[in-house]
Amino acid sequence: MSSDNTINRIALITSGGDAPGMNAAIRAVVLAAENYGIEVIGFRHGYEGVLNNDFVRLDREDVEHIMQYSGTIIKSARSERFKSDEGGREAATNLDAHQIDAFIVIGGDGSFRGADHLAKFWNGPIIGVPGTIDNDLYGTDHTIGYDTAVETAMDALDKIRDTAEAMDRVFIVEVMGRNAGYIGISSAMACGAERMILPELQKDKPLTVEALVKHIESVQRVRGDSSYVMVLCENQWPGGAVRLAEQLEDRLNLPCRPCLLGHVQRGGRPTAMDRILATRLGVHAVELVRQNQTGVMAGVSANELSATPLSETWTKRKKLSEELINIQQSLFNPIKKNRQKSTQTDD
Amino acid sequence: MSSDNTINRIALITSGGDAPGMNAAIRAVVLAAENYGIEVIGFRHGYEGVLNNDFVRLDREDVEHIMQYSGTIIKSARSERFKSDEGGREAATNLDAHQIDAFIVIGGDGSFRGADHLAKFWNGPIIGVPGTIDNDLYGTDHTIGYDTAVETAMDALDKIRDTAEAMDRVFIVEVMGRNAGYIGISSAMACGAERMILPELQKDKPLTVEALVKHIESVQRVRGDSSYVMVLCENQWPGGAVRLAEQLEDRLNLPCRPCLLGHVQRGGRPTAMDRILATRLGVHAVELVRQNQTGVMAGVSANELSATPLSETWTKRKKLSEELINIQQSLFNPIKKNRQKSTQTDD
Amino acid sequence: MSSDNTINRIALITSGGDAPGMNAAIRAVVLAAENYGIEVIGFRHGYEGVLNNDFVRLDREDVEHIMQYSGTIIKSARSERFKSDEGGREAATNLDAHQIDAFIVIGGDGSFRGADHLAKFWNGPIIGVPGTIDNDLYGTDHTIGYDTAVETAMDALDKIRDTAEAMDRVFIVEVMGRNAGYIGISSAMACGAERMILPELQKDKPLTVEALVKHIESVQRVRGDSSYVMVLCENQWPGGAVRLAEQLEDRLNLPCRPCLLGHVQRGGRPTAMDRILATRLGVHAVELVRQNQTGVMAGVSANELSATPLSETWTKRKKLSEELINIQQSLFNPIKKNRQKSTQTDD
Amino acid sequence: MSSDNTINRIALITSGGDAPGMNAAIRAVVLAAENYGIEVIGFRHGYEGVLNNDFVRLDREDVEHIMQYSGTIIKSARSERFKSDEGGREAATNLDAHQIDAFIVIGGDGSFRGADHLAKFWNGPIIGVPGTIDNDLYGTDHTIGYDTAVETAMDALDKIRDTAEAMDRVFIVEVMGRNAGYIGISSAMACGAERMILPELQKDKPLTVEALVKHIESVQRVRGDSSYVMVLCENQWPGGAVRLAEQLEDRLNLPCRPCLLGHVQRGGRPTAMDRILATRLGVHAVELVRQNQTGVMAGVSANELSATPLSETWTKRKKLSEELINIQQSLFNPIKKNRQKSTQTDD
Repeated sequence: MSSDNTINRIALITSGGDAPGMNAAIRAVVLAAENYGIEVIGFRHGYEGVLNNDFVRLDREDVEHIMQYSGTIIKSARSERFKSDEGGREAATNLDAHQIDAFIVIGGDGSFRGADHLAKFWNGPIIGVPGTIDNDLYGTDHTIGYDTAVETAMDALDKIRDTAEAMDRVFIVEVMGRNAGYIGISSAMACGAERMILPELQKDKPLTVEALVKHIESVQRVRGDSSYVMVLCENQWPGGAVRLAEQLEDRLNLPCRPCLLGHVQRGGRPTAMDRILATRLGVHAVELVRQNQTGVMAGVSANELSATPLSETWTKRKKLSEELINIQQSLFNPIKKNRQKSTQTDD
Repeated sequence: MSSDNTINRIALITSGGDAPGMNAAIRAVVLAAENYGIEVIGFRHGYEGVLNNDFVRLDREDVEHIMQYSGTIIKSARSERFKSDEGGREAATNLDAHQIDAFIVIGGDGSFRGADHLAKFWNGPIIGVPGTIDNDLYGTDHTIGYDTAVETAMDALDKIRDTAEAMDRVFIVEVMGRNAGYIGISSAMACGAERMILPELQKDKPLTVEALVKHIESVQRVRGDSSYVMVLCENQWPGGAVRLAEQLEDRLNLPCRPCLLGHVQRGGRPTAMDRILATRLGVHAVELVRQNQTGVMAGVSANELSATPLSETWTKRKKLSEELINIQQSLFNPIKKNRQKSTQTDD
Repeated sequence: MSSDNTINRIALITSGGDAPGMNAAIRAVVLAAENYGIEVIGFRHGYEGVLNNDFVRLDREDVEHIMQYSGTIIKSARSERFKSDEGGREAATNLDAHQIDAFIVIGGDGSFRGADHLAKFWNGPIIGVPGTIDNDLYGTDHTIGYDTAVETAMDALDKIRDTAEAMDRVFIVEVMGRNAGYIGISSAMACGAERMILPELQKDKPLTVEALVKHIESVQRVRGDSSYVMVLCENQWPGGAVRLAEQLEDRLNLPCRPCLLGHVQRGGRPTAMDRILATRLGVHAVELVRQNQTGVMAGVSANELSATPLSETWTKRKKLSEELINIQQSLFNPIKKNRQKSTQTDD
Repeated sequence: MSSDNTINRIALITSGGDAPGMNAAIRAVVLAAENYGIEVIGFRHGYEGVLNNDFVRLDREDVEHIMQYSGTIIKSARSERFKSDEGGREAATNLDAHQIDAFIVIGGDGSFRGADHLAKFWNGPIIGVPGTIDNDLYGTDHTIGYDTAVETAMDALDKIRDTAEAMDRVFIVEVMGRNAGYIGISSAMACGAERMILPELQKDKPLTVEALVKHIESVQRVRGDSSYVMVLCENQWPGGAVRLAEQLEDRLNLPCRPCLLGHVQRGGRPTAMDRILATRLGVHAVELVRQNQTGVMAGVSANELSATPLSETWTKRKKLSEELINIQQSLFNPIKKNRQKSTQTDD
C-alpha cells in the first residue's frame, strides 16, 4: 500500500456461497469509493481471482443498476489453493503488484478466515462485509442475503400451506442452515409451521420419528382433519426431507410429502431490507478503510454501525433468539390447548 | 333430477390434487348459476363429501373474493370408497336426496373417471371442468392451474440460475408431471435450461448418467466455465433429483445440487391466465348444464369453448408440442454451435 | 442483400414502447440464426440506431441468460427522423453498407408502419415480431408483453382489494390501453372488478358520473357495506383516475382513491407465457426470413404459427372477446341478483 | 374489569388505515391469550364496532392460517363518533357490558389518540400495537406493515427502472407518507432513485421545478442518455406526481411519466419481517396486559421489546436516519462525480 496511508485503490472480492444483496454491497463500495476519488478493482471468483490476476476495474457505470439482481457481477467461489501459505503469499504479491491499498471481502465465515490468512502475508487494511444467507456471524444483527432467503423459504411454505389446507396432508420443507437455525425459525414463525427441526434444538435433544408421529397425531386430534407443515434445516436428518417423509408415511395413515428448496434460497430479487443493509455496510466498509481500521467486519448491531474483529465473527457465537423459540415452540404449539384442558398428553 | 329437465340445483365438487384456479372456477359456477336462479351445493372433499353428506350451500357472498387464493374453499380429496359400485350407488342416492339436478366436477382424469363411474348410477347431467396442474387432458388446450404451476417452476429456475451463474455449478430441479412433460418443457424453455428430462422423451430413449456427463462436459467446454441447469420431471429417474445429483457429482469435478419443488407447485396466487380460464370454463359448465349436455368436459380449444366426451379426455392423448421440443432440444442446444464448426462432437 | 438470396446477416431492432419478453425474442432470433450460421447485428434504440449506425454484434453469449429481464438489451426508442423519405433512404443505405440480408423489427403497430416505410427504400426481406403490452395487433392472438402486463395490473388490483375489503371503500385503478381494452378487461376479470371502463365500450355509450354513482350505490345496497374496485383504461376519462376519484367522492359519502399504474406495467420479470411466445416468434421470424418471406408479421393464431401482411396488423381490427365482456359485464354484475328479485332497479 | 385484576377477557380492535401484518398481530394476540386461558373478543371496524356492539369471538381456529393475508379479518375503520365524550362513554359502557378486562388496539397514531380518549372513560388496561405502513411512531424501530409497503414501492420502482432504462426517460413515482419519509427514503435507496422528495427535506428547503430540471439535466449530461427516477412522497407537491410530470415535460425535451401507487401499498402478502414483528408485538401486548401495564405501546427498540407511553408515540418525533439521507443524497448523488472533477456545476 502507499507509504503515506493514503488510500488510492481498493481491491474487492465476493467469496464463498453467493447471497442476494452482494451486488448492492459491491455498488455501495464503488460509489462511496468514487466519492473519495478511490479506484476499485474487483477480482473475479473470490480469492481464486486474486491468485489468477483475474480482475476488472469497477466504475459507477458498471454498478449503477445492479442492485435488483441476485448473484454477484464479480462472481464468487471457494478456493482451496489460497488456504496454503504459498497461496497467501502469492495473493499478497499480486495485490502489491496492482498497488492495492486496502482489501474488502464480502462473504461468510469461511471468507473471513481467508481474510485472516491473507493478513499473515499482506499488511494493508482488510475489511469484511457479512454476505451470507445463514445469518450466523457474530457482530452483526443481520447478514446480507438473510432476509431474502427467509422470504424465499416463506414463499414456498405459504404455497405448501395452500395445498396442505386443501388436501389435509403432512409436508416437510427442507431449508438451508446446517449450522444455524435462523432461516428455519424465521420462516417457520412467518408461516405458522406446526413443527421446526433446528440444529440448535437438535443438539441437546434430537427428535425421533416416534416423537414426530406423536406430535402429528396430537395436532390432528386436537384440530380435527388439518394440515401439518414442518420446517427441517438441512443436515439435521439422515436422508433429509425425502427420507423423513418416507419414514412418517410408513407410520401415519396419510400422505407425507417432501420439498427440498436447496439453492433456490440463494437467488431471487433481494428484498429492500437486504439492499439497504448491503448499501449501509458497503459504505461503512469504505469509511473503515479511510479510518485505517483493519481486520474488522462492518456490521449493524442494534441499528448502529459497528466494527467487530474478524476472528470474533466465527469464534463467538450469535445465539438464536430465545424469545422466538419460546413463542414458536411453547406458546403457539397447537396441542398446548389440549394440554391445558387435560394434562394426560405429554409432548 | 326434476322431471321437467329444469335445473334448480347443481352439486359441485373439487376432486383429486388441488390446482391454483379451482376457486375461480367455483366462483364462476356459483355466479353464473345464480344469474339463472340456480342454487349451488358444494360437497366438501370431493366424492368423499358426497358419500358423507358433507356439504355447504354456496352463494355469491361465499365466492365473491376467493379468486386470488389457491386451494379450494370446498377442499379436495381422493376417495377409494367411491370407486366401488356400492360407493357409486350411495353417492347417487345422496344426490337424489338433495334434489340435485346436475353435477359438476372440477379435477383431473381420475376425477373424470369418477364422474364416469357416477353416471352408471345416477342419470342427471354430469359436466367436467379440467382442474389439474399437469395439463394432460385431451380436449382442452390448457387445464386450470397449469399456467400457475409453470410460473412457480420458472420462479425457482430463475433463482437457481442466479446462483448457478455466480458459482458456475450444475443444478437439477425436479418438477411435477410424472406422466406428462408440460410443466417440464414449458419451465425449461422459459428459463433456458440446458437440459430437460421428460416422460415423453424418456420413453423412447432413456438418458444415461454417461450421456448426461458427456453433455455437461461439452457445454462447459464450449462455453468456458458456466452454469448448467437441468429440469427433471418426477418419476423419470430412480431416486429423483437427489440421487441424480450424487451420481453426477461422482463423475464430474464440480458440485451438483438438487432441488425438489414438490407441492410448492400446487400453491401460490393463481395467474391471470388461470383465473380467466377458470372463469370461462366455470360459466361454460353451467351453460352446458342448461343445454342438457352430459358426460362432457368443458374446455377451450384454439381459443374456442369446446365440449369433449369425458372418456376421451383420458383415452385420447394430448401430444407435447413438437415445435417446442425441437426448439428446446435441437435448435437451442448450447453445444450445437460447436458441432457445426467441427463435427467431431457427438451428442 | 446477397445476390443469391442466401441470408448471411440479419439486422434486428426493438422499437416503440418496450414490452416484457422483448429480450426473450432477441435471444430466440440470435440462437436460431446462429444455428443456421447467420450473423445478427442489433441496432440500438430502434430506427434511430439504424440512422446513427449505432449497432452491436449479437452472439450466443450476449443473449444466453437475458430472458428473465424486462426492457431490451438493444434499447428501444421512437424516431421522428426516420419517418421522412430522407430518413428511410438513409436507413436503407446504412443497412446495405452493413451487408444486411434481412431485417427483423420487434415492436407494435407504429414500428410496423416504420417497417412498411423502410420497404419503400430497401428491398431485403422485412419481418415483424409483435412486441407490445397492448395486445392490439391483428394477426396474432397474443403479443409479447401482454400477459406480463395483465399480471402486473392484476397484482395491483389484488392488493387494492385487500385494503378495500378492510376499509369498505371505492378504488379506481388506471391501466394502460388507450386504444384497446385488453389489459383492462383481462385484469378486471382476473380480479373480479365491479366495474371496467374500456375504450371499446366508451365509444358507443360513454359512462357518466351519474351512472357510476348509481351503480356504486346499487352494489353497496345489495351487498351491504363492501369494497368497490373499478378498472379504468387510460385516456377514457378527462383527468384520469385522479379526477374521477374526486368527482365520485363529491357525490358519494365515502372515500374514493385513485391509483395510476403507468409504466410499472411495462416492467417486471416476463411471465413464462410471454417468454415462450417470444421464443416461438423469434424462431419463427428467422424461419420466415429463410423462406424468403417479407412484409409479414410472425404471429400465433389458434395455437398455430402464422404470417400476416404487416399492413393488415393495423388496418384490420382485432376484436375484444364478446364472451369475456358478457361474462364480466352482465353475467357477473353484482347488482344483477337484485334485478332478478325485483325489476325496479335499472342499471 | 374483574375486581381481582385477573384477566379473563381481552377486547381487540384494528383501527385506522389497515396495514399488512395486522392479521399476524391478531393471530398472536389470540394464540398467546388462549395459552393463558384468556378469551379474545374482536370488535369489527375499529372503535365503530365498540360503539355498535359489532363483535366476534376469536378462537385458535379463526386465526390459525391468516398470517399470509393483508387486510384485517376484523376490519378497520376511522370513527368520528367515538371522538366525542359521549362516544368515549358509550364505548366504555359497552366494554363493561361485555366484561372486558383489557383492551388492545392495533393501529397508528390516530388509533392511539383514540386509546387515550377511551382511557378517560374506562379504567381497564389499554395497550397499543403499532400497525401502520408509515413507520412514524416514536417508541418502536419498525411498525407493522412498513416493511411490506417498502417492498411494494420497491417492486414498482424496479419495474419502472426496467422501462426507464430501455427508453431513457424521466419517471416520478408517488409513494405514501405525507408526514414521514420512511417509505420514501427506503424505497429510493433500495432502487437507487436519482432523486427523492421527502416531507422532512421539503420542510426546510422546498424544491423548485427549476432545481429539479437542473439536476435532471446534470445527471443526463454526466451519464450520457440515461434513466432518471424520482420518488415523491404524497402531499409534497401541488397536484402530485401527475402535475409534476407535466411541469417537467414542459421544461425538458424528453417524456416524463407519473405513477401513483396509492393504496396498492397497503395490500399484498406481508413480508416475513412484518409477520415476525407482528407476532412478537402481539405476544408482547398480551404479556403487558398480564403485567397490569396500561397506556403503553408494545414496541421493538434496538431488537429488544419495549413499552412506551402512548402519548409519547405521537408527541415525540422519530427522526429519519441521517446516515441514510446522507448516503442517498450526497454520497451517491450521480452528479457528485462531475462536481469533484470541476467545481463549476452547482446543484
